[in-house]
Amino acid sequence: MPMLGFVEYKNASPEVRAVYDDIMTTRKTDHINNFWKAIAHDPANLKRTWQATKEIMAQGALDPLTKELIYVAISASNLCDYCIASHTASARKKGMTDAMFAEVMAVVALANANNRLAAGHQVEIDEAFKPR
Amino acid sequence: MPMLGFVEYKNASPEVRAVYDDIMTTRKTDHINNFWKAIAHDPANLKRTWQATKEIMAQGALDPLTKELIYVAISASNLCDYCIASHTASARKKGMTDAMFAEVMAVVALANANNRLAAGHQVEIDEAFKPR
Amino acid sequence: MPMLGFVEYKNASPEVRAVYDDIMTTRKTDHINNFWKAIAHDPANLKRTWQATKEIMAQGALDPLTKELIYVAISASNLCDYCIASHTASARKKGMTDAMFAEVMAVVALANANNRLAAGHQVEIDEAFKPR
Amino acid sequence: MPMLGFVEYKNASPEVRAVYDDIMTTRKTDHINNFWKAIAHDPANLKRTWQATKEIMAQGALDPLTKELIYVAISASNLCDYCIASHTASARKKGMTDAMFAEVMAVVALANANNRLAAGHQVEIDEAFKPR
Amino acid sequence: MPMLGFVEYKNASPEVRAVYDDIMTTRKTDHINNFWKAIAHDPANLKRTWQATKEIMAQGALDPLTKELIYVAISASNLCDYCIASHTASARKKGMTDAMFAEVMAVVALANANNRLAAGHQVEIDEAFKPR
Amino acid sequence: MPMLGFVEYKNASPEVRAVYDDIMTTRKTDHINNFWKAIAHDPANLKRTWQATKEIMAQGALDPLTKELIYVAISASNLCDYCIASHTASARKKGMTDAMFAEVMAVVALANANNRLAAGHQVEIDEAFKPR
Repeated sequence: MPMLGFVEYKNASPEVRAVYDDIMTTRKTDHINNFWKAIAHDPANLKRTWQATKEIMAQGALDPLTKELIYVAISASNLCDYCIASHTASARKKGMTDAMFAEVMAVVALANANNRLAAGHQVEIDEAFKPR
Repeated sequence: MPMLGFVEYKNASPEVRAVYDDIMTTRKTDHINNFWKAIAHDPANLKRTWQATKEIMAQGALDPLTKELIYVAISASNLCDYCIASHTASARKKGMTDAMFAEVMAVVALANANNRLAAGHQVEIDEAFKPR
Repeated sequence: MPMLGFVEYKNASPEVRAVYDDIMTTRKTDHINNFWKAIAHDPANLKRTWQATKEIMAQGALDPLTKELIYVAISASNLCDYCIASHTASARKKGMTDAMFAEVMAVVALANANNRLAAGHQVEIDEAFKPR
Repeated sequence: MPMLGFVEYKNASPEVRAVYDDIMTTRKTDHINNFWKAIAHDPANLKRTWQATKEIMAQGALDPLTKELIYVAISASNLCDYCIASHTASARKKGMTDAMFAEVMAVVALANANNRLAAGHQVEIDEAFKPR
Repeated sequence: MPMLGFVEYKNASPEVRAVYDDIMTTRKTDHINNFWKAIAHDPANLKRTWQATKEIMAQGALDPLTKELIYVAISASNLCDYCIASHTASARKKGMTDAMFAEVMAVVALANANNRLAAGHQVEIDEAFKPR
Repeated sequence: MPMLGFVEYKNASPEVRAVYDDIMTTRKTDHINNFWKAIAHDPANLKRTWQATKEIMAQGALDPLTKELIYVAISASNLCDYCIASHTASARKKGMTDAMFAEVMAVVALANANNRLAAGHQVEIDEAFKPR
């Protein structure tokens, strides 16, 4: 059980139900996953978090799959078990193959390694890389 | 200056020069950036790190630009100044626009926020999201 | 079981028992939680860690509840399951309500998001914000 | 200079200016700090980020100073230089004294230490601490 | 089950078997642990990761036990449950005692605490500590 | 300048001077580095931090150089510029060579990479690795 328990649809306020409805419509599913039901005790934060997620993960200069791969990458980098599980599921729905997943993990591992080599060796930024 | 100073091409051993040559050829540039010159004091690690970077960042199930965007995302998530600067430069070369960069940052911010909501609320993984 | 097992009161050395006794007296409880029993294999570190925890978390310029909320915030930010569970329990004892917990999580999420936007966009510090 | 440069008020679109105006009104200042000017290249993200910041940091179950202290704590925990500088400035405005700042840092240090002791020793959660 | 399931020896390609054989020979064991079986879906990454691990963790300027202690320290600092469990097992094989483990944890906790004090207080680097 | 400025010896209280004196005596130096002068505004925290540092970093089951290498490793993993600079200086005094430093960095990079592969692939702990 999460910290504050779950807010199930049947016990939810109209404000929370409106968010749940939008999640189900947007994602074409009738499953409200645990994340939303756990944070729904604070309806304003639920609404804001869902709104931000919906807008940011939508088609833009980047397509939804690329964004989902980046989300998975960050979740793996942060060792967030819940987030890895839920967002690899989303990414699969949007077309992530096993090979793509494995390559995302390889890039995450590489960047995490090289980030530490750069910091540990106290490498200063090349003039050529400074924003103008 | 980095911790151990720079290994410049003119003072480098044949083993280090071979890596530098491969970097310049692969990247079609004559600039060896500070990262490589800082870690070259350990030629085996230089070679291994370059080889891994070259292989992982190449075309595969994901294209090089997508991989570079993930690399930038991880570097921003880790607050690695050098890595953000050097890999946004690489990403631009591979086609990253300002709008794409801004969207990568928005996804990084969102995932970092939501990762903490999931962990802090102690949300357990939905059955539907568990690997079979 | 933790790495080195638990040091239970009945098997503890006088030095460890003295710390356990002080924990129970200070916290008005007869429960020594797993954290202390797991680190008690190194009595010097147990004593130092308890002493620091007791002193730092006490009333000072900040009250104990505010300090506990900050502790919960850091634990959520670090995705430390044990620490979130144990310190939300402590915070509740000191007066944290569900609404307060939800707001702490919202601030943690916000700060983690904005920290990455600042770093990723390579924002330099405003002159007005530099310590004099 | 940040990655994409600054969006100054005089060159900003009406949408961006509306956010800048709201920041200045809300904070009773005529200084738009670098963070906002750096992320304003993506007006939708600027607006969303400001809206979230404004709402989350406002008076609620927790007062604005307590929230700001938590924000400072997370920023220090993440080693985010910009965020530490800008949010210690905000916190001072809201009443943070030197003694309060020093105590926040002490709690941040303590929690970061103890989080690792808990994880490293593989301490499992006490039954008493599990959410019901 | 890991994300992509396990690649068991009996179902593995010759390329994967060659890595598994080398792991078992090098480590003088007939146990291929879950980590390798989980990442083996990407044989190139399996091979590269094993090769790097084998080379880096071998005797060099530092002995294998010291390297393993550093690996355990990083895993605890990152709160990586799997990595703590598997590498404390490796470290024990190489001679880590309970007292040594406890001291590694104490240093990890101390460094994590002091790192935040340094960052939060915005301490600049002493001239004497700058690399020449 | 750090957040609260420096507490110089000549302006320090007897309590702070006693710590400074012990630092100089223990380390056989007349240089009080910036870290201590920045945190000295909170004399109780200064004393506790120095005492912990002195005790934990002393000869024990591990020798002081090994402990310092672990401290450097954590500081690089956390991307803490100040801490990397100050503790590589300490490590050199205790005998760290360039080759040893480069190997520490290689282990730090490796562990950071593999930690993410383990988490991202959702690898569960082998029975053989669970503490008995």
